[in-house]
Amino acid sequence: MDLGGTKSIVAHVDALGKIHRKLRLPTRASRGPATVKAEIVAAVREVVHTANRPPAGVGVGVAGQVDARSGAVRFAPNLGWIDEPLKEDLKKALKLPVFVTNDVRAATWGEWLHGAGRGYDDLICVFVGTGIGGGVVSGRRVMTGCSNTAGELGHITIDLNGPSCRCGNRGCMEAIAGGWAIARQARKSIASDPKAGQILLEKAGGEPEQITAKVVMEAAKAGDALALRLVDRIAQALAAGAASLVNAFNPCRLILGGGVIEGYPELVKRVAERIEPRALPAARAPLTIVRAQLHNNAGVIGAASLAMHSPAKVLKGKRRES
Amino acid sequence: MDLGGTKSIVAHVDALGKIHRKLRLPTRASRGPATVKAEIVAAVREVVHTANRPPAGVGVGVAGQVDARSGAVRFAPNLGWIDEPLKEDLKKALKLPVFVTNDVRAATWGEWLHGAGRGYDDLICVFVGTGIGGGVVSGRRVMTGCSNTAGELGHITIDLNGPSCRCGNRGCMEAIAGGWAIARQARKSIASDPKAGQILLEKAGGEPEQITAKVVMEAAKAGDALALRLVDRIAQALAAGAASLVNAFNPCRLILGGGVIEGYPELVKRVAERIEPRALPAARAPLTIVRAQLHNNAGVIGAASLAMHSPAKVLKGKRRES
Repeated sequence: MDLGGTKSIVAHVDALGKIHRKLRLPTRASRGPATVKAEIVAAVREVVHTANRPPAGVGVGVAGQVDARSGAVRFAPNLGWIDEPLKEDLKKALKLPVFVTNDVRAATWGEWLHGAGRGYDDLICVFVGTGIGGGVVSGRRVMTGCSNTAGELGHITIDLNGPSCRCGNRGCMEAIAGGWAIARQARKSIASDPKAGQILLEKAGGEPEQITAKVVMEAAKAGDALALRLVDRIAQALAAGAASLVNAFNPCRLILGGGVIEGYPELVKRVAERIEPRALPAARAPLTIVRAQLHNNAGVIGAASLAMHSPAKVLKGKRRES
Repeated sequence: MDLGGTKSIVAHVDALGKIHRKLRLPTRASRGPATVKAEIVAAVREVVHTANRPPAGVGVGVAGQVDARSGAVRFAPNLGWIDEPLKEDLKKALKLPVFVTNDVRAATWGEWLHGAGRGYDDLICVFVGTGIGGGVVSGRRVMTGCSNTAGELGHITIDLNGPSCRCGNRGCMEAIAGGWAIARQARKSIASDPKAGQILLEKAGGEPEQITAKVVMEAAKAGDALALRLVDRIAQALAAGAASLVNAFNPCRLILGGGVIEGYPELVKRVAERIEPRALPAARAPLTIVRAQLHNNAGVIGAASLAMHSPAKVLKGKRRES
């Protein structure tokens, strides 16, 4: 299950990462957590019902911070949840072992085991959407960190005195290359040079507030000069951040995904070119930089993989449930 | 053994990290690798000779890049070594299992098992000396990465357009807070404002080229205004870098060591204060920031710990040797 702020996916996934059945449903967060949980439980039941045998477990990737031990959602701003006992409630309702992780980490599991990271023991995923999140596989383990928040890769500082970030810091990679920051910069550029911003503004129906990263990427693909400059700034920021990650983690593979990358796939090549002079030769020697493969299914496939690759816990869960 | 560019330490270390005997010797790199190896082999033999029983193995921390499989030194600029079969040669000479790693990673082993990191499963060491190096323990394992270079923490970018770094990139944490960069900035500041630089220059015997990070730290402790401004800049850079590391890795503990920290220990507090507004609340919640404890012995204690904590390899080594 991929439980997002506005929509969710519930799917029956096999051990090879293949999706057998997939349901999409809106996440009606405004109705409160009980309603959201009841609706996803109903969706899981339907998927389980049509599968030819009961699932080994239920994996959940949720758009929020997760407590590693309890599987509770500590804080999920897009859902409006604080300390919501997600794992406990799903277990009670479904009578199945349940594994809860962050949505981005679930997507990392997916790309690692069934996507662009297959066969790699050390890799990093960076998902560039409205925000930027990531996940790290080190020595064949998905890093969790001390309080289960490892992988906040959007919030590495790349410009000490750079633009403010939604996190309260400044100069984070996300504050330049995240979707919301791209839109902010586009509006700023248009305001300071309306002539250069004409095409962008047209694409947004004349409304600066309607400008999104998607609009910028479309204009760049159409050759608009301002949009191309904006893309260049994004590539520079992603490359600086990627160089930091390569030097610090020394991954074999760096996987780039998310809406901004999907909107302008050439960014992968642009980042790779700019890493060359930025990362240490010994660190970048084994490195390949590629695009994510599972797209919107990474989270749901990864969540299922997480459940399947935690055999000890599954067994323990089964025993407790039976 | 801690094999440095100008001096080396060979010690008999027990399983509790206690040093029983310690020899210091100059590393006479200019005489070539054969001489260096012969001299350290002689020192190891002397230490072994006076120990009451033969050691389980020999751990080596060397100032250079190490090939994880062969234990060869791929590149050690301060020793002038390229592709030097260190492990192989030491094994042949000593008839003991040998484990070779990078000196900074050895120090991380030391601080983790016997220093400021005892009992922590997730921690980061940052050693701020002439350069900046580091090591990461994640889930009770010292990270190695894809090509054994994980932990180049001095070369995370904190200022996209910042000052040039010796690595070829610009704006690395090391390019602002490393000893060589501190000296560079001090010289620059003195040149642009000789009056403000008077005390610093005096402490360096009137020779700008004699200004080192140590001189800056001493002047700062004596209350010199320019030196204090320089220290502030260092604290800011270290805090920005530390925030990146905390957000990306989510360690329980951040350990700061090395000559610059030893020269101005208050930097630890200054970095901790500045992390507060920079790192994500969930990532910094469990974090403590402390000073390294083992000082110059971290490398030699850590190298020995590495050898003792690789039991399977030790056994294999013994069999092969016997």
